[in-house]
Amino acid sequence: MKTYNNPEKSSWSSLCKRAQLEASNLQELVESIYAKVASEGDKALLAYTAQFDGVDLKGLKYDNTTETSIDPELEKAIKDAARNIRKFHKAQRPNDVDIETMPGVRCQMLYRPLETVAIYIPGGTAPLFSTVLMLAIPALEAGVKNIYILTPPDKTGGLNPVISKTAQLLGIQDIFLVGGAQAIAAAALGTESITKADIITGPGNQYVTEAKNLAQSEGVLIDMPAGPSELLVWADNTCKAKYVASDLLSQAEHGSDSQVILLCDSIELVNEIQMELDKQIQNLERITFAEKALQNSRAIVLADEGLQIDFVNQYAPEHLIIVKNNAREYLNKIENAGSIFLGNYTPESAGDYASGTNHTLPTYGFAKNYSGVSLRTFLKSITVQEIDEKGMRAIGPKIEKMAEAELLGAHKNAVTLRLNDLL
Amino acid sequence: MKTYNNPEKSSWSSLCKRAQLEASNLQELVESIYAKVASEGDKALLAYTAQFDGVDLKGLKYDNTTETSIDPELEKAIKDAARNIRKFHKAQRPNDVDIETMPGVRCQMLYRPLETVAIYIPGGTAPLFSTVLMLAIPALEAGVKNIYILTPPDKTGGLNPVISKTAQLLGIQDIFLVGGAQAIAAAALGTESITKADIITGPGNQYVTEAKNLAQSEGVLIDMPAGPSELLVWADNTCKAKYVASDLLSQAEHGSDSQVILLCDSIELVNEIQMELDKQIQNLERITFAEKALQNSRAIVLADEGLQIDFVNQYAPEHLIIVKNNAREYLNKIENAGSIFLGNYTPESAGDYASGTNHTLPTYGFAKNYSGVSLRTFLKSITVQEIDEKGMRAIGPKIEKMAEAELLGAHKNAVTLRLNDLL
Repeated sequence: MKTYNNPEKSSWSSLCKRAQLEASNLQELVESIYAKVASEGDKALLAYTAQFDGVDLKGLKYDNTTETSIDPELEKAIKDAARNIRKFHKAQRPNDVDIETMPGVRCQMLYRPLETVAIYIPGGTAPLFSTVLMLAIPALEAGVKNIYILTPPDKTGGLNPVISKTAQLLGIQDIFLVGGAQAIAAAALGTESITKADIITGPGNQYVTEAKNLAQSEGVLIDMPAGPSELLVWADNTCKAKYVASDLLSQAEHGSDSQVILLCDSIELVNEIQMELDKQIQNLERITFAEKALQNSRAIVLADEGLQIDFVNQYAPEHLIIVKNNAREYLNKIENAGSIFLGNYTPESAGDYASGTNHTLPTYGFAKNYSGVSLRTFLKSITVQEIDEKGMRAIGPKIEKMAEAELLGAHKNAVTLRLNDLL
Repeated sequence: MKTYNNPEKSSWSSLCKRAQLEASNLQELVESIYAKVASEGDKALLAYTAQFDGVDLKGLKYDNTTETSIDPELEKAIKDAARNIRKFHKAQRPNDVDIETMPGVRCQMLYRPLETVAIYIPGGTAPLFSTVLMLAIPALEAGVKNIYILTPPDKTGGLNPVISKTAQLLGIQDIFLVGGAQAIAAAALGTESITKADIITGPGNQYVTEAKNLAQSEGVLIDMPAGPSELLVWADNTCKAKYVASDLLSQAEHGSDSQVILLCDSIELVNEIQMELDKQIQNLERITFAEKALQNSRAIVLADEGLQIDFVNQYAPEHLIIVKNNAREYLNKIENAGSIFLGNYTPESAGDYASGTNHTLPTYGFAKNYSGVSLRTFLKSITVQEIDEKGMRAIGPKIEKMAEAELLGAHKNAVTLRLNDLL
């Protein structure tokens, strides 16, 4: 971790830089995968699975009807986490709006669930069952009827048992063993087995990212743009150095492109945390990832608290831990962050798994304009208006005037005809 | 308008087809415009304005400080419409969420306005001042600090007075005279004069659409995908044929690619409305557009009401007028629509201008997954969690278990360290 002592504001934009994303030129490849999925459907998906995953599958649908057994303590933990996530997302349900904007003019906003949601879960060493919880529970609470999981098969053509169990606990029956850009193409276009999705959610590699980008440009919603995970810890001397170090490491172990930032007002605190980092990192299994991530990472000392606040907002962290005296009082100063963790007993891992908030959050500075996944991600709004005779008499002449000024005679006429009948 | 009498369900997908979008291959051109704007900034914008709009401007910023005079009746209409729009969008403000998901685990959702909003208003014959209202008022109500308008200069290098006045009435001071893909590139990238936007909103031609698409793929939000405007009128014999015809025409006059659909249960009603169409169209200034649009349009007769509901939801209209006995009772059957208009005295023009609802709505079937512009368009959400010692004791072991199962040792360790101190 490199330390910057009271850096000039002019240098902040470079201090806020994330690791460069690989400027991969995958567009042509992904477009060719889309074209093949569009013309050949399921057959193309099975062929890609044979080619890229090295597994010959008979069909795409995974039969998840036999109850899967996992460590009962883990099952209990998943159920408890699910309960917290459900509770927090249920509380996000927006109220319908129903008002008279003027006498006789009633306007409403109603909410409806999306119909079909695709959840992509990558393969690899770690089974991301927590991401199944974070994407499926808000969709279920929103009232989505058709939710399916897309995930590549393991080497034997099977599915990780914890993913299988998590889907069973949530009542998600549709799991398709297909991964990569071809899985996203299937959700974007629809095939014989896989229904075209209204939204495609979930993390993935650069092929998945490019395929989600293409889906979005064709009018399918996606959860948010992809980027490596990141954490900013904003601390003062009320923090415990070993806790801060453990939080920085829990972010750093995600991957070598993860970024962690420590922001505080004292070099001594930085040094203390650095010593804890050096000590704790030795015991990590994922030490190679963590070491690389720490090379991209920064400790920033700013004496002035106003500048600290400005820095947080300019960086716009995915995860923001505030361990300062009266941490809660800083909430109203934060404009840009994905999720905020307050105090010494709120590690990032809590939000990653079980507190109830969503862990699908905007990275890479996108917290400036994107929100994390929420109940609203899976809802759309419809407006309604109803005007009675009195309302039309009052509002009609205004509409006529405005339509005329926009040179739209038929718009005006639709009102004039009615007003004439109401004379 | 072609009539379909009780068409088979298998034919519905072709009946729901919109006019083909021009498969323009503008990507390379728009990418080259982005590249020039990125490297040359304002200078590139002025050069493109000279090239495409035929006007040599000294600077981009339009001086809108001198008060503009317009027809006082029109000014009054704009003010009254603005008041209704403000009232309806203010009522959409979401409540912060603040709950304990379990004892000692507090979770919150807070909302923050986006910082910078770009509003694109196309040039052309009709000055779209109503779109300024529909995009700026929700942004202002959301609390956005930096709102600017991008619009091409007229032939003399000036600005339409009604656009100028509308901006003055709303207090929007920043207007930049630049149009086309270069305007969108400026908002997506930022230049010396124009701040990089968090969201780019507003309608435009195929160059603007392609440029918004590119902005979105680089992580700038856009309001929604573009497509020609459309209307479905769902009627029974309680409707007035001349009103329905006037509504169909007000949609048809938008452009030759507009689409109007009439859905009802009787051929007689179709014929009656068709006669009114033939009569009213003769008096329209925009008869050429309307006639062409009606060629793409359909009257669909379905005897069964359940099938009518299915058809509406499959078509997913941008605008849906319901003129049926007890029209309001059908609201809970509608899953997919941008905005709904109930009864004989609620023409589409009312929502286009003045009822209070937003007229920036999803077209082209995107009402299946997109929402119209609302207050929420200009807000982002941030989650917060705070766990106390009691909460950590309860939730900690669950987090450890889940982190371990995802093979993330440092995530587990961040909790273990804390739990050890709480023994």
